[in-house]
Amino acid sequence: MLPPKRHLMLFSGRSYPGLAEEIARLMDTQLVPTRQVTYANSEIYVQYEESVRGSDAFVIQAHAAPVNESLMEQLIMIDALKRASAKRITVVAPFYPYARQDKKHLGREPISARLVADLFTAAGADRIMSIDLHAAQIQGFFNGPVDHLWGLPVLANYVSEKYDTEEMTVVSPDAGRVRLADMWTDRLGSRLAIIHKRRDPNVANTVAVHEVVGDVEGRVCLLVDDMIDTAGTICQAADALMERGAKKVIAAATHPILSGPAAQRLNDSAFEEVIVCNTLPISTEVEVNKLTVLSIAPLLAQAIHEVFEDGSVTKLFQ
Amino acid sequence: MLPPKRHLMLFSGRSYPGLAEEIARLMDTQLVPTRQVTYANSEIYVQYEESVRGSDAFVIQAHAAPVNESLMEQLIMIDALKRASAKRITVVAPFYPYARQDKKHLGREPISARLVADLFTAAGADRIMSIDLHAAQIQGFFNGPVDHLWGLPVLANYVSEKYDTEEMTVVSPDAGRVRLADMWTDRLGSRLAIIHKRRDPNVANTVAVHEVVGDVEGRVCLLVDDMIDTAGTICQAADALMERGAKKVIAAATHPILSGPAAQRLNDSAFEEVIVCNTLPISTEVEVNKLTVLSIAPLLAQAIHEVFEDGSVTKLFQ
Amino acid sequence: MLPPKRHLMLFSGRSYPGLAEEIARLMDTQLVPTRQVTYANSEIYVQYEESVRGSDAFVIQAHAAPVNESLMEQLIMIDALKRASAKRITVVAPFYPYARQDKKHLGREPISARLVADLFTAAGADRIMSIDLHAAQIQGFFNGPVDHLWGLPVLANYVSEKYDTEEMTVVSPDAGRVRLADMWTDRLGSRLAIIHKRRDPNVANTVAVHEVVGDVEGRVCLLVDDMIDTAGTICQAADALMERGAKKVIAAATHPILSGPAAQRLNDSAFEEVIVCNTLPISTEVEVNKLTVLSIAPLLAQAIHEVFEDGSVTKLFQ
Amino acid sequence: MLPPKRHLMLFSGRSYPGLAEEIARLMDTQLVPTRQVTYANSEIYVQYEESVRGSDAFVIQAHAAPVNESLMEQLIMIDALKRASAKRITVVAPFYPYARQDKKHLGREPISARLVADLFTAAGADRIMSIDLHAAQIQGFFNGPVDHLWGLPVLANYVSEKYDTEEMTVVSPDAGRVRLADMWTDRLGSRLAIIHKRRDPNVANTVAVHEVVGDVEGRVCLLVDDMIDTAGTICQAADALMERGAKKVIAAATHPILSGPAAQRLNDSAFEEVIVCNTLPISTEVEVNKLTVLSIAPLLAQAIHEVFEDGSVTKLFQ
Amino acid sequence: MLPPKRHLMLFSGRSYPGLAEEIARLMDTQLVPTRQVTYANSEIYVQYEESVRGSDAFVIQAHAAPVNESLMEQLIMIDALKRASAKRITVVAPFYPYARQDKKHLGREPISARLVADLFTAAGADRIMSIDLHAAQIQGFFNGPVDHLWGLPVLANYVSEKYDTEEMTVVSPDAGRVRLADMWTDRLGSRLAIIHKRRDPNVANTVAVHEVVGDVEGRVCLLVDDMIDTAGTICQAADALMERGAKKVIAAATHPILSGPAAQRLNDSAFEEVIVCNTLPISTEVEVNKLTVLSIAPLLAQAIHEVFEDGSVTKLFQ
Amino acid sequence: MLPPKRHLMLFSGRSYPGLAEEIARLMDTQLVPTRQVTYANSEIYVQYEESVRGSDAFVIQAHAAPVNESLMEQLIMIDALKRASAKRITVVAPFYPYARQDKKHLGREPISARLVADLFTAAGADRIMSIDLHAAQIQGFFNGPVDHLWGLPVLANYVSEKYDTEEMTVVSPDAGRVRLADMWTDRLGSRLAIIHKRRDPNVANTVAVHEVVGDVEGRVCLLVDDMIDTAGTICQAADALMERGAKKVIAAATHPILSGPAAQRLNDSAFEEVIVCNTLPISTEVEVNKLTVLSIAPLLAQAIHEVFEDGSVTKLFQ
Repeated sequence: MLPPKRHLMLFSGRSYPGLAEEIARLMDTQLVPTRQVTYANSEIYVQYEESVRGSDAFVIQAHAAPVNESLMEQLIMIDALKRASAKRITVVAPFYPYARQDKKHLGREPISARLVADLFTAAGADRIMSIDLHAAQIQGFFNGPVDHLWGLPVLANYVSEKYDTEEMTVVSPDAGRVRLADMWTDRLGSRLAIIHKRRDPNVANTVAVHEVVGDVEGRVCLLVDDMIDTAGTICQAADALMERGAKKVIAAATHPILSGPAAQRLNDSAFEEVIVCNTLPISTEVEVNKLTVLSIAPLLAQAIHEVFEDGSVTKLFQ
Repeated sequence: MLPPKRHLMLFSGRSYPGLAEEIARLMDTQLVPTRQVTYANSEIYVQYEESVRGSDAFVIQAHAAPVNESLMEQLIMIDALKRASAKRITVVAPFYPYARQDKKHLGREPISARLVADLFTAAGADRIMSIDLHAAQIQGFFNGPVDHLWGLPVLANYVSEKYDTEEMTVVSPDAGRVRLADMWTDRLGSRLAIIHKRRDPNVANTVAVHEVVGDVEGRVCLLVDDMIDTAGTICQAADALMERGAKKVIAAATHPILSGPAAQRLNDSAFEEVIVCNTLPISTEVEVNKLTVLSIAPLLAQAIHEVFEDGSVTKLFQ
Repeated sequence: MLPPKRHLMLFSGRSYPGLAEEIARLMDTQLVPTRQVTYANSEIYVQYEESVRGSDAFVIQAHAAPVNESLMEQLIMIDALKRASAKRITVVAPFYPYARQDKKHLGREPISARLVADLFTAAGADRIMSIDLHAAQIQGFFNGPVDHLWGLPVLANYVSEKYDTEEMTVVSPDAGRVRLADMWTDRLGSRLAIIHKRRDPNVANTVAVHEVVGDVEGRVCLLVDDMIDTAGTICQAADALMERGAKKVIAAATHPILSGPAAQRLNDSAFEEVIVCNTLPISTEVEVNKLTVLSIAPLLAQAIHEVFEDGSVTKLFQ
Repeated sequence: MLPPKRHLMLFSGRSYPGLAEEIARLMDTQLVPTRQVTYANSEIYVQYEESVRGSDAFVIQAHAAPVNESLMEQLIMIDALKRASAKRITVVAPFYPYARQDKKHLGREPISARLVADLFTAAGADRIMSIDLHAAQIQGFFNGPVDHLWGLPVLANYVSEKYDTEEMTVVSPDAGRVRLADMWTDRLGSRLAIIHKRRDPNVANTVAVHEVVGDVEGRVCLLVDDMIDTAGTICQAADALMERGAKKVIAAATHPILSGPAAQRLNDSAFEEVIVCNTLPISTEVEVNKLTVLSIAPLLAQAIHEVFEDGSVTKLFQ
Repeated sequence: MLPPKRHLMLFSGRSYPGLAEEIARLMDTQLVPTRQVTYANSEIYVQYEESVRGSDAFVIQAHAAPVNESLMEQLIMIDALKRASAKRITVVAPFYPYARQDKKHLGREPISARLVADLFTAAGADRIMSIDLHAAQIQGFFNGPVDHLWGLPVLANYVSEKYDTEEMTVVSPDAGRVRLADMWTDRLGSRLAIIHKRRDPNVANTVAVHEVVGDVEGRVCLLVDDMIDTAGTICQAADALMERGAKKVIAAATHPILSGPAAQRLNDSAFEEVIVCNTLPISTEVEVNKLTVLSIAPLLAQAIHEVFEDGSVTKLFQ
Repeated sequence: MLPPKRHLMLFSGRSYPGLAEEIARLMDTQLVPTRQVTYANSEIYVQYEESVRGSDAFVIQAHAAPVNESLMEQLIMIDALKRASAKRITVVAPFYPYARQDKKHLGREPISARLVADLFTAAGADRIMSIDLHAAQIQGFFNGPVDHLWGLPVLANYVSEKYDTEEMTVVSPDAGRVRLADMWTDRLGSRLAIIHKRRDPNVANTVAVHEVVGDVEGRVCLLVDDMIDTAGTICQAADALMERGAKKVIAAATHPILSGPAAQRLNDSAFEEVIVCNTLPISTEVEVNKLTVLSIAPLLAQAIHEVFEDGSVTKLFQ
C-alpha cells in the first residue's frame, strides 16, 4: 500500500514553444524535455526524455499554419504519452483547429471540427482546454470535459484602461458576431452597432453594400471578433465606419491568424490599434503597425493550475 | 446465393400519429402495426406485429411535451428494431429534442443536445433526419449521417403567395436569429430589421428596452424564428414593431411548441397571422386565432424516399 | 507534485429528495446544491451550484412514475457531471427502471433493462448501485461494477421481531418468485408454500385457478415479492390463502410501486400488514391501511461509504 | 454499378462436424472447406480454402468439453472471417458456453456469460443464434440481434406422440425450472409437480429432503430441464418420484452435456427414457441406456434459412 | 420494396491525381468531381460535387511529403463521405504513412503506424488497401479488412525480362530485409547475399564496416528493399558490392520516397538501374538517371475491382 | 474528503503458480487467495476470497499448453476484477499467447495475436506486461500501455560469466532472427553467423540445404532465439554448425515451450547446454539434459514495482 502522488507535467509542440515556456515559468515548473524530429520524408517523430508514467500531462500546441503539421504532432505526442502510461492527458489548444468547419452548409461537406475532436479521442486525449471556440457548440463535439476559456476579460481590461468607454461604440463586423459584441457592451457599458452586408438580389452571393446599423458618428468604434484571419471583413468594416464619421476605429480579437494578405490589409487600414492575444505565434515576417499583443499565458497557467488541483475554472471568470 | 431486396418500413411513436400517417399516405405505404402500451407504473412497452428483419426502418416521432416520454418511446422502438434485425434504423425527429441545450453557457451544465445524440446511438440508430435544428452544429453531435431539412421553403412559398413582399420587412426577434432573417431576405428580396434587447447596466440580466433597428414604419413586418415556445419574445417584438408604426405584423416559424402561456399571448398579440409547420402536434386545447399550419409531411416523404433510394436530399433544396 | 484528495459528493434528482437527504444526514454530509428546472415545454435543465471537479459523485434518483422523467433527469445530471470533470460517477437507483423488460418473450420486443444500462453508459456513468434487481442477470447488462444490495435483511429483521416465525409459512405468489421465498425460509427457518396459477387449456392465456401448494391452514402466511405494482397478484394470493384457512396474511416486498388500483386493492384485501422499503416515494394520495415503510437509507449510506472508502459491500451482507 | 448478390456460407468448428454437415445437407449446400490445425503447443490455426468476401457467414460450433477450446476456435474463425471481408457473421452456438455464470451470487465473481458475449463482439460477430439459453436474459448480454430458438417443440412432439399425456405429470426438478415446467404443462395439457429441496436449518447449505409437491402417485412423471450436466439433481428427483409412487419416470432436456458421472448415474437411475437433442455431441464413451437423441438440425437449418432470407424466426414457433 | 444497386465511386486526394486518374481509366470510369481547397490559414476544405449516397467509395491518396497534409486531406474526405451516407469507405493508401514507426524501440515513443490506423477508423473508414507494408503486422493495427497487395510481381516481371537471372544475386541491404530478399530468390531462382553492418564495440551505435556475406564477385547484384527514402543505406551497399567485385549493381524497391539527398546519392552511385513503382509521385525536381518507374495502377485497378465485386484479392497473387 | 490509498494486489492463474509465488516473495507480499475451479463440463469458475475494491491488480498467467485454458482463465479473472471494482488491471503474460499469428501470410487467415489483445480489452484489462514478444509490433495491437521487457540481459549475464565470449560466435537459426542475433553480438562483442535455408526451386516449400553463413570453425557457437517450441529448427542448425567444425554449440532462448518432440530432439542433439528462462513452466515429464533454467521472476518483480510506483520500466534496461 502506497500514498499516491500526482505529477503535473507540461509538454509543448514545436509550433510555438515561447507560449508554453511562458506558462511553465508562471507555474514555476519546466517543460518536459522532448525530442521532436521531422524526418526528411516529412514524418514526425517524438520521444520524451524523462519518465512520464502516472503524470497529469498537459500537451500545449498552437495551431498556426501549417495546421496539419501542428495537429499531427500533437496527436503523436498524445499517443506516446498514452503508451508511456501518463495518467491523464489534456489537450491544450488555445486556438482550436478547423473550428470554422463546425457544420454542413452544403451537402457532402465534412464537419472537420468534430473530426478533430474524434482524432484527439482516438489518440488518447482525456480532456481539452481551449480559448474562445468559434462556436461554443464545439464543446459538444468532444465526449469529455472541455475547459472553455474566455479571452474577452484580457482584451477588455486593456481596452477599458486605455480608452474612454463612454465615447466608445462596440461594432460587430457582421451578423454572425452580434452576440460577441453584446457581451462586450455588457462588460464596457458601451453602445452597440452592426455592419450589415446587403446582398444584391440580382447577383447571387454578392454583397452589395456594407450598411452600418447604429450610431457611430464621432464615436470611437471598437470592432470585435474571435479571430482575424485574412482581415478582409474587418478592414472593410473599418472603412465603412470611417465613412460614416467615426472618430477612430480600433479592433480587438482573440486569435491572430493573420494569414495571406492580412498584414498588408491591416497596415493599409484605418485602424489606430489592433489588439490580439498570443494564442498563436505571430510570424516575424508579419509586421503590422500598431498591433498590440496581450499574453494569454497567465490565463492558461491559472486554468491548468485549477484543473490539476481539482479547483474551479468557472470561478476564473466570475 | 440470393438477390437481396430492400424493404422500406415506416414506424410511428404515439406522440403524433397523424403526421406519420400522412407521410405513409404520401409514400403510398402503411405504418407498420405496432403495439405500444404505457403500463400503470408509467413504463413504456413496444412490440411490432410484423417481421422487420432486414428492413430499412424509419422511426417517426414528434418531440412534443412530454418530451421525455416521446424520447424514451423512440429509444425503446429503436432497441426493439435493432434486436429484431432491422438492417438500418433512421431516427426521424422533425423537432430535435433538447436542441437549445447545445452548449455550456455556465459551468457545470449539461450539453443535453449532445446527450440526445448519444442516446440515439446507444439504442442503435444509424442515422438521423431532422428539420431546422436550433443550431446547425448539432449535426456534428451525431457520429453518422444527419439529413438536415429546411422548413424555410415551405413557409416562404406560402408567405410570398399571400403577401406582397415588396412592402415587407423581415425582422429578427433578437440577435441570435439574424442569420435566419438574412436567409429570408435573400429568398424574398425584402428588407431587414432587428429587435435589439438593451440591458440596463445597473441591473444584472435585465432587458431595459426592445429597440427596433431598421426601417419598419408603414411596412408589413414578418417576424421569423425557428420555433415558438412560450411566445414571449416574439409577442414583445410584435408590440415594439406596432409602436414603431408597422402596418401589420405576421410571424413565421417552423416548430409550434406553443407551451404554457403561448396561446393566450398570441391571441392577445398584434399578429395578423402566425404561420407554422406541423413538425409538432398542436393540442386541441391550444386555440390560437389566425394560426396557419402548413404540412411538413410532403417534405419528409420526399426526403425519406431519397434516403431509401440512395438519391440526393441536397437536391431537394436546390 | 501534489497529494491527491478524494471528495465524496452526493446529488439528488427531484423524484424523492427525502431519501437522498436521509442518506446525506446519515453520512454526516449535505447534498450538493443543484438547480433543476422543468421548462414550460417539458425539457429538464440542471446546473450544479458548486464545483464538482475531481469528485467521487453519487447520483441518487428514485425511479417512481413518471419513470421516463426521472430517468432523463438522472441522465442529464450524469452528463453535466462528466462535462464538469467529476472523477467517478455512480448511479444510485434503488429501484432499477424497466427491470421487468429484461428479455424478449415474444419476437420484436425491446430489452429495455439493457437499454437503460446502455443509456447510463452513454451519459457517462462509471458504476451502478441498486437494490433487489428483478432479475440478478441485469448486473450483466452493465459493463462495469454493479453493487447489488439486498433489502431482505431489512424486511426480515422487522418480520422476525414482530411475528412468531414458528407459526409462519412463507408463500411465493407465483412460480417466478419461488427462489426469493426460498431465501426467506432459509433466513426465518419457516415453512414454504406456493400459489400456482393453473391455466384453462380451453382458453388461451387465462388463469383458471390459484392453487395453494403446501400447508397453510392455521398458519401466519407471509407473501413475499420484490415489488408491489398494481397489487393484483398478491391480493388474489391473499384471498386464496384465507380461503384455505390461513390464520392471517401479511406481505413483505422491497419496492412499493403501488400504481393504479394498488391502494384500493390493498385496502380491500385480507392483509393484516404490508411491509415495504422506501426505495420509492409513496404518494400522499396513496393511503394504504396498515402499510409499514422501513427505511432503506441506512443500507444505502453504508454501501456508499464502503464504495467511497474502497471497503467491501459484500461484507454488509455476511 | 452492379446488382449485388448475397452468398450464404456455412462454416463449422471441429467440436461437432456432424451437426454442421447435417444442417448443410438439409439446406442443400456444403460447408466451406476450412483448414483447422491445433499446433504442438496447443495453439489453434484456421484458414478458409475459398474466398469468403461479401458472404453471409454462419459459424456453427458446439460448445462441448473442452469448452475453452471450442470457444477460442470459434473466436479465431470469426476473426479470420472479419479480416477476409465477410459481410455479416452469425455465431451459431446451439449450447451457449458459460450460460450458468449469468450473474454474481457472491461478491468478486465473474459474469462469464456476459464475458462470452463481449468476446464474440470483440472478434467481430454481428449476431448470435442459440437454443434454450439457461436464462433468457442472456439475450440482453449481446448488443445486437439474438435469435433464441426453443427446443421444447422438438422434445414435446416426440413425448406427446409416444406417451399418453393424460396420465402424465410434468415435474420441475427444483425451484429454478418451474417456469419451464409451466411451459410444458401448457403445451401438453398435463398436471404439474415440483421437487422442493428443504435445507436443514442447523447445517449450512445442506439439502435435507427432496420433497415432492403435487400429485404423482400412479402418474407418468416427465422431469424437464434445459440441460443434463452431471445428472445428480435429476436422478435424485427420479428416485424421490418413484418413492412417492410414480408409475414411471422419464426425462426431457435440450442440452446433453453428460459430464463426469452422468452416464453412470443415468444408467443406475429409475428413468425409463431420457430424451435429449443433439445440440452437443455425445461421446461414444458415454453409453446411456434408453437415451433418445432427437436432431435439432432441422430447426437450425430453418432458422438459418429465415435469417438469410430476411424471413421471420418468430413464426417458426407460432 | 426495391432492388438495391451498388455504385463504385473513386475519389482522389490532391497529392498524386495522376495515379488515381490512371486507375479510373483502367476501370473505365471517372473520378468523382471534388472541390478541394487549402485556405490561406492552411486548413483543408473538401466538397463532393455529386451525390455519394449509398456508394462503395474508394479514397485514393498517395502519402508523399508533406505526409501530414495528405493524411489530413484523406481523413477529411472520409469524414465527408461518412456524413454524406456513403455505404462503405475504403482507404486506398498505396504507401502507408508512418509505416516505419510500427513499434517502440525506446521508452516513451509513439506507435504512429497504429495511430494512423486509429485515425482512419475515427474518421469513418471501413477498410484499407495498401501495398508492401513495411511490416506485415501493420495489418493487425486495423480492426477490419486490410487488402495487402504485393509489388514484387510487378518489379520481378520487369527484372526477369530484362536481366539474366542466372548470373544474378539478390542482395539484402541490411539484416531487416533478409526475408524480402528470400522472397525474391524464390521467385527468380537466384542466389542470395546480405550486407551486414558490423558495429564498432568501442563506439556506441556506430557501424564500422559493411560486410558482404555471400558470393557476389562477377555477379549482377540486385539490391531489394520495400522503399528508397534518403537512399543512404542502399548506396553504401552498392559501393560495398562493387568493391567486392560485382559485375554490376541494380536496385528494385516498391516505394520511391526519394527524400532529401536521395536523387544526388543515386546519381552519384554505382547503380546501373534503379527500378521502382509509382506508389508515390516523383517530383519533377528529382531527376534520377536510370530510374525506371513501373505503374502500379493496373494492380490497384484489379484489386479495387475484386473488392467491389466480392471477388478474391488473394487469387491475384497465385 | 479522504486521503486515497493504492493497494498492490497480485493474482495468479493456475498454469504456473510457482512463478507468481516467487514474484510475490520477492516483492514481500502474498498472492490474493483465489478460488479457481474447473467444473466437470470444463467451464472455469473464479472467486476472490478478499475484497479487491480499488486495488492496482496484476494478473499473472503463464500461457503454456493448453493455451486456450490459460487464456480463458485469465480473461475470467479480469472480468471478475472489473466487476469487483479493481481500480486498474494489468495483464502479466510473460509469454504472449498466439504471438506467432501476428500477420496474414495467406488470404483468409486470422491475426490471432491481435485478437488476443482485443479479448484482453473486452474483458477489462487496462495494460499488458510481457517479455520478448515474437514481433515487437504486437505492442501496437493493444490500445494502451504495454510494458515490454527483455529477457536478453538475464540470459546474456549467465552466458558471459560462464563462457569465454572471445571465442564465441552468435548464430541466428534462420533469416527471421538476425536482428536478435545482432543484439546479442552488440552485447557480447562476439562475431555473427547465420543459418540460411536454401529452398529447392524444383520442389515447392522444401528447404534443400541449411547453409552456414559466417565463420564458425573452431568457435563456440551460441544459437539464439526468442522461443524453443518443437526444437526442430534449432537442432538442425546445431547439426549444421558441428558439421562445419564448430568447437561446441550452446543455445539461449527466452521462452521454453518445449512441445511435442522437443525434449527428445534436444537430448539427441549436439548441444552442450540449452539456456532458457522460466517464463513458462517446464513439465516434469520433459526431461532435457543440460537444460539450464534462469528465473525471470526478479525482472518481473522489479517491473511490477516500477509500474505500481509510477517509476520507470525503461530504466531497468539502461
